[in-house]
Amino acid sequence: MSSFEAILEAFKTSFEPDLRRVIGTLPQGAERLEEATVYSLMAGGKRLRPMLVKAGARAAGCEQQSWLTPAIAVELVHTYSLIHDDLPAMDDDHLRRGQPTCHVAFDEATAILAADGLQAAAFDCLANREDVSLSNRHRLHMVALLARASGLYGMVAGQAIDEASAGKIITLAQLEQMHRLKTGALIKASLGLGCLCTESPESPVYQQLLNIGELLGLAFQVVDDILDVEGDTHILGKPQGSDLHHNKNTYPSLMGLDAAKDYARTLKERVDGQIARLEGIGDVELLKQITEYVLIRDH
Amino acid sequence: MSSFEAILEAFKTSFEPDLRRVIGTLPQGAERLEEATVYSLMAGGKRLRPMLVKAGARAAGCEQQSWLTPAIAVELVHTYSLIHDDLPAMDDDHLRRGQPTCHVAFDEATAILAADGLQAAAFDCLANREDVSLSNRHRLHMVALLARASGLYGMVAGQAIDEASAGKIITLAQLEQMHRLKTGALIKASLGLGCLCTESPESPVYQQLLNIGELLGLAFQVVDDILDVEGDTHILGKPQGSDLHHNKNTYPSLMGLDAAKDYARTLKERVDGQIARLEGIGDVELLKQITEYVLIRDH
Repeated sequence: MSSFEAILEAFKTSFEPDLRRVIGTLPQGAERLEEATVYSLMAGGKRLRPMLVKAGARAAGCEQQSWLTPAIAVELVHTYSLIHDDLPAMDDDHLRRGQPTCHVAFDEATAILAADGLQAAAFDCLANREDVSLSNRHRLHMVALLARASGLYGMVAGQAIDEASAGKIITLAQLEQMHRLKTGALIKASLGLGCLCTESPESPVYQQLLNIGELLGLAFQVVDDILDVEGDTHILGKPQGSDLHHNKNTYPSLMGLDAAKDYARTLKERVDGQIARLEGIGDVELLKQITEYVLIRDH
Repeated sequence: MSSFEAILEAFKTSFEPDLRRVIGTLPQGAERLEEATVYSLMAGGKRLRPMLVKAGARAAGCEQQSWLTPAIAVELVHTYSLIHDDLPAMDDDHLRRGQPTCHVAFDEATAILAADGLQAAAFDCLANREDVSLSNRHRLHMVALLARASGLYGMVAGQAIDEASAGKIITLAQLEQMHRLKTGALIKASLGLGCLCTESPESPVYQQLLNIGELLGLAFQVVDDILDVEGDTHILGKPQGSDLHHNKNTYPSLMGLDAAKDYARTLKERVDGQIARLEGIGDVELLKQITEYVLIRDH
């Protein structure tokens, strides 16, 4: 285990109980729904987005725990999107992180509803939690950012473009636009949410963190695509080559594997440069570590 | 056409262009998603919930147009819930308001995503729109109310209970609990959202309007169940008896048709009593008219 993987593990250990507490006791008769939401929410994952919220907050100079509320919100949105993405009408995936996907472990109707409920819970969390370190104004900015990044102009549009382009040859520009929306928007928003713990959307540091998030999101996806070619099922938790199997366009399939690796390195250099400009404002250590990790991870 | 139906029509005519404007131009490649969201959003419907938001605002003494933003938000949530409700894995309905349902007119993946995007758009709308008559505090209360009412402790839980009880005989208390969540929570929230245009959640008028919304929501569902037995497809826009066909528990099936009609009348009397207590605070005329309508409508 690398030193950053130890940090990731420590983060998960402290974050996951807070995440779990978001789902309370659901109304009588909705036990299966409750079970499904908890199942998907606690099914592991790297908790990368919540950590990015923390990294964004630290980089913007916020030393408080106010990153926790938006970190939970972004993970709720991420989890809902995975559940819907795995549905038979979408990617039809049966395995996620080595475990049966939500609609396999439960049923399609329950999976659809659990995800719908998790999306609402994200905004409930931003608007409701008794977190005195966040002002109404900051929380409302967060609602606006998260709704925009995850909705029809962000993640959801990216998924629709992904669906529409499945089985078709697309250009590299189209692939990049798709990823910019599908995974990039939420990664970018994670750093933005962290920044909004202490800054306004008008501050220069906010725009800088969004830029970093944009590059990091792209790099993350390029590495994901490379791992799908090179990784193995045991480590990935999904069948290796499953993207190829689904006839999906990927960076390696459009650029070639070596060019994709070069591209990932170039993106990382650009991120490093942007992060360097933030030094002195806040603590960029965590952000640097995540950037290293995103490029060198093997799962 | 009754005089209230003329009012309903006039409301729709002025409201629907504002609703339509919420969906702008989506990112390139997401044209089908954009088409599907607009299709479902503009597929008609009574726009009862937006009108309830206006009625709640007027009853609470708000004379401004600030009800428009939460009215749009609640209709976005209502529309998303109909799209998911109609999916093959849920009610498997092919017809809604006399038109093909979203997944029939488009496809399942697009329908799932369109609804996901509409949910995000609701919170985007509450947090983002340039409505100077709403303070950050009011808007944040609205986000909290709408997220809670539509999520795992409200509408989504109700739909899960509905799914879980399909084909099973349930008690009247269970039926009522299901409807209280599935349709009641959003109707109740509509009046609450209207009230929050001008009042805080701590004000007595807020609680009174929530009480009225709760009773009205129940009455609405009882009448819906009665209409499913008595209406015809042409007026309903869905096959008459479709609830029976799906082996659903309804008020008429559990109480008998006459008892269900009596119950609807009783609920209306209780609503009337509660509304009377609001006179003098604001203008309750619209709220009274909606209440009359909910009980006497034939579609």
